[in-house]
Amino acid sequence: MNTSATTASANHTPLVDTALFPEGGDGEVRAAHRLYEHLVGIWAPGVVEAAQDLGAFAALTEGPATAAQLSERLGTDLRATRVLLDGLHAYDVLGRARGEDGQPVYSLPPEMHGVFAPGGLYSLAGKITHDRNVAWDAWRNLAENVRSGARTSGGAQQLNQISEEDYTALVRGINFWAPPITQVLAEGLRAHGWTSGADRRMIDVGCGTGIYSQLLLNEFPELRARGLDVERIVPIAQEQAKRLGVADRFRTEICDFWNDDWGNDSSLALFVNIFHLQTPESAHELLLKTSKSLAEDGVIAIADHIVDEDEDGSTQNKFSRLFAASMLATGGGDAFTVQDYDQWLADAGLRRIALLDAPMHRVLLAGHA
Amino acid sequence: MNTSATTASANHTPLVDTALFPEGGDGEVRAAHRLYEHLVGIWAPGVVEAAQDLGAFAALTEGPATAAQLSERLGTDLRATRVLLDGLHAYDVLGRARGEDGQPVYSLPPEMHGVFAPGGLYSLAGKITHDRNVAWDAWRNLAENVRSGARTSGGAQQLNQISEEDYTALVRGINFWAPPITQVLAEGLRAHGWTSGADRRMIDVGCGTGIYSQLLLNEFPELRARGLDVERIVPIAQEQAKRLGVADRFRTEICDFWNDDWGNDSSLALFVNIFHLQTPESAHELLLKTSKSLAEDGVIAIADHIVDEDEDGSTQNKFSRLFAASMLATGGGDAFTVQDYDQWLADAGLRRIALLDAPMHRVLLAGHA
Repeated sequence: MNTSATTASANHTPLVDTALFPEGGDGEVRAAHRLYEHLVGIWAPGVVEAAQDLGAFAALTEGPATAAQLSERLGTDLRATRVLLDGLHAYDVLGRARGEDGQPVYSLPPEMHGVFAPGGLYSLAGKITHDRNVAWDAWRNLAENVRSGARTSGGAQQLNQISEEDYTALVRGINFWAPPITQVLAEGLRAHGWTSGADRRMIDVGCGTGIYSQLLLNEFPELRARGLDVERIVPIAQEQAKRLGVADRFRTEICDFWNDDWGNDSSLALFVNIFHLQTPESAHELLLKTSKSLAEDGVIAIADHIVDEDEDGSTQNKFSRLFAASMLATGGGDAFTVQDYDQWLADAGLRRIALLDAPMHRVLLAGHA
Repeated sequence: MNTSATTASANHTPLVDTALFPEGGDGEVRAAHRLYEHLVGIWAPGVVEAAQDLGAFAALTEGPATAAQLSERLGTDLRATRVLLDGLHAYDVLGRARGEDGQPVYSLPPEMHGVFAPGGLYSLAGKITHDRNVAWDAWRNLAENVRSGARTSGGAQQLNQISEEDYTALVRGINFWAPPITQVLAEGLRAHGWTSGADRRMIDVGCGTGIYSQLLLNEFPELRARGLDVERIVPIAQEQAKRLGVADRFRTEICDFWNDDWGNDSSLALFVNIFHLQTPESAHELLLKTSKSLAEDGVIAIADHIVDEDEDGSTQNKFSRLFAASMLATGGGDAFTVQDYDQWLADAGLRRIALLDAPMHRVLLAGHA
């Protein structure tokens, strides 16, 4: 068990000061504290979602306020409002300073405003809505899915519990992953000699909001992109392309991945969070189809939670494996290893060029073998 | 907002490698990753509780196993079992090594065995049972309690949602806090000249399992303790005193704190996690009663989640404030500040001697003014 201090994430809020454990103390007592800290992980979504539900973040986006002011504004109990705000401060979600009369004044840091705003480009509002509707029950009852394999009584894989409406919220709610992943991808493409000229075309298969293509278009000013997705999603992608100033180079296509033709001149074929939804069989089929659509010097870029068995303690492996557990809870897919991908690539006449680390994901680049 | 890396806790599992963020990147994107990591805090209790429910930890206490072996033993789906075990490995709850045939073999580290065992001295099994029954719904619906103040329609404070049965489980399930707190307390007593002779008596008011007294009796071999609690709890304390070899010096008393006499010769009056359950009025009354029971050179020791407004970023403040939010969710009390305690002490003819940090709590020592 890894018990060394870690500095790989600045995001966590320690609730145990392990420096105060007695030297050479009981390993079981330390282990119990560590497990307790895992168990109370539920507190963080609890306070954040309650505050979002009550409109506290929207109110604080307008300016700092005391617990009394917020309680009046939101129609909530004063003491309970103070407890909630202090809890959010404990997680460093809110600032807390003493006002002139000694009462604490709470503030939402500017970089957090868009995070809670429904229309923010990198908003998590959709993720929160989805979690409110689906995640709590699913995680509370995970044991049932481990028993059944999340399969229906007929043996089929459980339907994804995410409704169409939730999916639309969720697809916007994970845009925030895109900037660091796109940066890693752009650097990787340049490092491997991929060039962007006026004749370069990319396809973004299952583009969602199109955020990855749209950020790449800003990186490569001559590149043009086609975003393929279902009818319900493409208007979101079109609207966002306008917002990001790349609408003239980003075209959406309503597309049935499996049956429609993708063309045969793609310089770049991008798959973000698509492969974890596949079975080994459908992954193989997808890569065969990609191989046919790819120009001779084209590159396939797969951004996903990809496990690298040779990097066992890596943050990317941990996230990948826990995301697989999340999908076991709510439906949706699995985490595959780079060894799985290598096999699928080889079977489709392709080969891996690079495997790059992003903050939570990995980016795999591949080309014709 | 604090975005610096922290090493105060070795317990967390980072899921974002913040070192891979682009230099000078967008603050909102970083903030969104940080918030996401808070929101997925729900994953940790999800996987741990599912494994406990399914009996996976009990099985692994007997020895390492593959996913196939566990799935057969537990009657669970193979793929889903593998996903669950990999998730527990991601949180460093399970070890994972490659067996000779290449299949991962999962192991529960020895220091974790007692943590999941119902009868373990520092077991969290009772905490997990309580969380399964109460915590999920309570945290999911926290916003309701912030609106209502967790009060009944008649205006009274909400009844604690913890049933008697759950409380009995829970009171055993938080023993693990005791060893480092008791060590801090014993060192503090010695540092302030408190001595233990054959005539020294302590009372442990609301003793629960009696773990704090029992560990102190092991520190101070001439000390004798009386543990006061309700009828349902004292048999637990008696049994545990035997287990820890101090039954000859630990006596339980079924006691109504408010109406029964505590005597007047206590060298040490101990209150662990009692004051957070009080109102300011009942805290005042409790300290008045303590003052009367305390020998002239006696010491009052209060171990609780105590907020120190002068140490705003401290781990102890964060835990205190989040525990207050937890009590808002499930019922039970509040977090008071050291300034509150100082006022109550002064009103009862007492004065603070010391305020000491434990890994999650603070220990306040006081004596006659």
